[in-house]
Amino acid sequence: MAEQQITLGALAALVGGKLSDPEKAGTVVHGFRALELAGPSDLAFLWDPKFQDAARASRAAAIVARAPVEGAQAPTVVVADPQRAMLALLGQVYARRHPPEPPGVHPAAFVHPEAVLGEGASVGPNAVVEAGARLGPRTRVRGGAFVGLGVTTGADCVIHANATVLDHCRLGDRVIVWTGAVVGKDGFGFVQQQGRHVRVPQVGGVVLEDDVEVGALSTVARGALQDTIVRRGTKIDDHCHVAHNCDIGEDVMLIGYARMGGSVKLGKGVYMLQDSAIGNGFTAGDGAVLGSGAKAKYGSVAAGEMVLGDPARPHMLMKRIEGSLPHLPDLRRRLRALERRVAKLDGLPDRKGD
Amino acid sequence: MAEQQITLGALAALVGGKLSDPEKAGTVVHGFRALELAGPSDLAFLWDPKFQDAARASRAAAIVARAPVEGAQAPTVVVADPQRAMLALLGQVYARRHPPEPPGVHPAAFVHPEAVLGEGASVGPNAVVEAGARLGPRTRVRGGAFVGLGVTTGADCVIHANATVLDHCRLGDRVIVWTGAVVGKDGFGFVQQQGRHVRVPQVGGVVLEDDVEVGALSTVARGALQDTIVRRGTKIDDHCHVAHNCDIGEDVMLIGYARMGGSVKLGKGVYMLQDSAIGNGFTAGDGAVLGSGAKAKYGSVAAGEMVLGDPARPHMLMKRIEGSLPHLPDLRRRLRALERRVAKLDGLPDRKGD
Amino acid sequence: MAEQQITLGALAALVGGKLSDPEKAGTVVHGFRALELAGPSDLAFLWDPKFQDAARASRAAAIVARAPVEGAQAPTVVVADPQRAMLALLGQVYARRHPPEPPGVHPAAFVHPEAVLGEGASVGPNAVVEAGARLGPRTRVRGGAFVGLGVTTGADCVIHANATVLDHCRLGDRVIVWTGAVVGKDGFGFVQQQGRHVRVPQVGGVVLEDDVEVGALSTVARGALQDTIVRRGTKIDDHCHVAHNCDIGEDVMLIGYARMGGSVKLGKGVYMLQDSAIGNGFTAGDGAVLGSGAKAKYGSVAAGEMVLGDPARPHMLMKRIEGSLPHLPDLRRRLRALERRVAKLDGLPDRKGD
Repeated sequence: MAEQQITLGALAALVGGKLSDPEKAGTVVHGFRALELAGPSDLAFLWDPKFQDAARASRAAAIVARAPVEGAQAPTVVVADPQRAMLALLGQVYARRHPPEPPGVHPAAFVHPEAVLGEGASVGPNAVVEAGARLGPRTRVRGGAFVGLGVTTGADCVIHANATVLDHCRLGDRVIVWTGAVVGKDGFGFVQQQGRHVRVPQVGGVVLEDDVEVGALSTVARGALQDTIVRRGTKIDDHCHVAHNCDIGEDVMLIGYARMGGSVKLGKGVYMLQDSAIGNGFTAGDGAVLGSGAKAKYGSVAAGEMVLGDPARPHMLMKRIEGSLPHLPDLRRRLRALERRVAKLDGLPDRKGD
Repeated sequence: MAEQQITLGALAALVGGKLSDPEKAGTVVHGFRALELAGPSDLAFLWDPKFQDAARASRAAAIVARAPVEGAQAPTVVVADPQRAMLALLGQVYARRHPPEPPGVHPAAFVHPEAVLGEGASVGPNAVVEAGARLGPRTRVRGGAFVGLGVTTGADCVIHANATVLDHCRLGDRVIVWTGAVVGKDGFGFVQQQGRHVRVPQVGGVVLEDDVEVGALSTVARGALQDTIVRRGTKIDDHCHVAHNCDIGEDVMLIGYARMGGSVKLGKGVYMLQDSAIGNGFTAGDGAVLGSGAKAKYGSVAAGEMVLGDPARPHMLMKRIEGSLPHLPDLRRRLRALERRVAKLDGLPDRKGD
Repeated sequence: MAEQQITLGALAALVGGKLSDPEKAGTVVHGFRALELAGPSDLAFLWDPKFQDAARASRAAAIVARAPVEGAQAPTVVVADPQRAMLALLGQVYARRHPPEPPGVHPAAFVHPEAVLGEGASVGPNAVVEAGARLGPRTRVRGGAFVGLGVTTGADCVIHANATVLDHCRLGDRVIVWTGAVVGKDGFGFVQQQGRHVRVPQVGGVVLEDDVEVGALSTVARGALQDTIVRRGTKIDDHCHVAHNCDIGEDVMLIGYARMGGSVKLGKGVYMLQDSAIGNGFTAGDGAVLGSGAKAKYGSVAAGEMVLGDPARPHMLMKRIEGSLPHLPDLRRRLRALERRVAKLDGLPDRKGD
């Protein structure tokens, strides 16, 4: 994967670390792997003490860790913060594998003469940037992406290939809109007129604050009257949906297929795990967790609470229900037996069970 | 959002209404907001009597309603049909914010010489219209959209940015295909040949009748032998799926992530709420409702019925089951206690429970 | 649909079959339909004996079958393998309805000068092929599709309209990436740094082996350190998700909205039915089946096993639980009645139930 070659000595210098066994400074590593999968030319990382055993058994060329791994075959590259060292090293490899487009407008792109590009911004082949759009410095619109009328972005955003940001949406700095995502589609608002569904024009917009990420093939719908807002640092995984008028707090995580009805309000740091769903007008307090597959149709979840199940219930209650369910067929049989026994005891006729 | 300025006097004239307090005719409104959120420069709407209290308490510049709102601070713009007035006003703002592309083919589009465009039709930048396609009058193919071989559309359709309508699909009048949607992808049909999955060529098409809407990132698959049909007025939300050979009735609503297997038949006015799913060959009578998250794997739902749960059951039964579930762990404990008690009473050995 | 005209005689010759009633050799058929829907100008197929009755009653112009259908009105085209005959006939119609683009680069496409196209490969209008990409012989990149840096494909692949294959993904022979699908998006990997979600650069790739199909609007995410792998012959339906580091075995079927967390391992021939979901690190043995809507959050399913429900449980157990659930409200009532009765019998005070 990584297609790189670097000696352990050079690597230790790169991350400001110290090699536990200086004799291994000449060993060449080619890539990275998890502790248990790493071979003699792979670098591995240890930052969570629970993987100490895996580190000890690892066949890696070296392990980046906070302290030498006792009993390990592999030498340690000792650093103050192994996680940060990992992010730095992987970031370098990533940048080499995915170099950004050169600044400017690709000859095969269409950028409307009334659009404005910040310094170092780029627009890739067959991308479209419509009138009135303003791209911040170093913002990249990749091949085949579409940026509508009057869209504004901050600095260092990436609108990935074949993604779409529709008219008048406003993006902060470092926002990432992934491949095939759709931001600013009209919300699904209808009224009935003479038995027909009639669209309510959606005149709100979408605001994605700094450091927001919208996953591949995810949607953030435009508000009906006011804006739909996704606040700073929130990360949205693939296949998710934020409906019209929602207000998603800071640092929220929406994991695969998380979805919601309109006018939802999520506090700071809420987690919606894979496949969780919430209904119109639902609210969740700071740090609330919607467990995998939780369907919270009405009402709210308090700050810090975790819910599970369909319909969603407090986590511990749902776990007890789930634990009891396999006994249900047997409960039914036993109750019937007991009814018969008691009927004999009290001499009254057996009440018809099922 | 709305970026408009209009006096209440002008506004009343625009919707053919009457201002309850003529002295306020000069008040300027800038936009629209819900009754409880509106401030002194916002217009709000009241059409459902259940919001009478919210109207009375509203701080809006004015309220569009059927009759003067008694006790309200805000003056009323009295109209015969407030909902229709709202649609008209929002429609004007929307049209100003999202002006259509000029008619004709954008220089950066590709339209095959054997395609035919109706009067006033437009094809946006980097869109593709393949040979034999026929676009009706005023139909818009927006930037980056793809229209395949021999596709036909009626008048006033919109194929949004980066949407795809594949070969030979047939669209009626006023059909909207949203951003990133896919119409006419081959259905998922396979047979086994020597232990391998072999594709069954899907030679059917897709018909979307008048006023159908297909949401962002939704799919309508091409039929195996006959056409997949979505009938007049049906609205499909985002992330939904209509499989091959389905026949979706008129005025149906498929809400977010509603999905189905092949050869499904839905009657007129069926609702599939968020996250509901139905299996191959399922049928639903006119006006049936699949509740949020309902999974109806086999069989059918009768006209007007509502089902819920996984597996889907009649709504009232499922509500009772859901209400009983939190008691299940306790039922188990109580049954065990009762078994012990009865064993003592009848002098027979206790039967082993769990 | 099929827009073809062929006599039964010509048709029999075409599939190497024999017409049971030579007098009907001149009958013209126009298309195909299922046995029960076919009319006097439609051809129908019979390969599964369970449809013998439908064949007998069919009004088709002729039935392609292994042996003459006794008692049927329609003559039979007798062939050794009716399924194979069907595939051949439908394949011919399909090829006529969906002719491939001519080889070469469309004038409206952008192909980087450092990309390499195999013999007979084609790139459609407004498609993009980036530097270092290598397309195998006869591979088609359709209109609006995006192929990133260094992507390699084998022979006879199809990257459909508006699909995206991102940097460095590697495709085998005959791989199909459907409309709007996204292959190689960065996996959803984050760590916490000072209370913020920080992306872990995903330096792995994606490998799609021979004969893999990725459905419309489905995603296969790039690995974190190692590659995400989808093995030979696996078919992925629409709206599905394969997360980073997954290893999907050969001949697997992922049906609509099937989805998974990271580092999942599926054996050969696994079925994930509509709407099934599995969590991070889950493993499924060869031939395991995740039933429709099954949510398998932790652990594993053994080879050949079938699971159902949320949380997923062995199929037979879940069926028994599902069968018992409608009785739950009544069980609660009956248990209460029994408690009262027993209290009377043993003269002790009634224990408070609910």
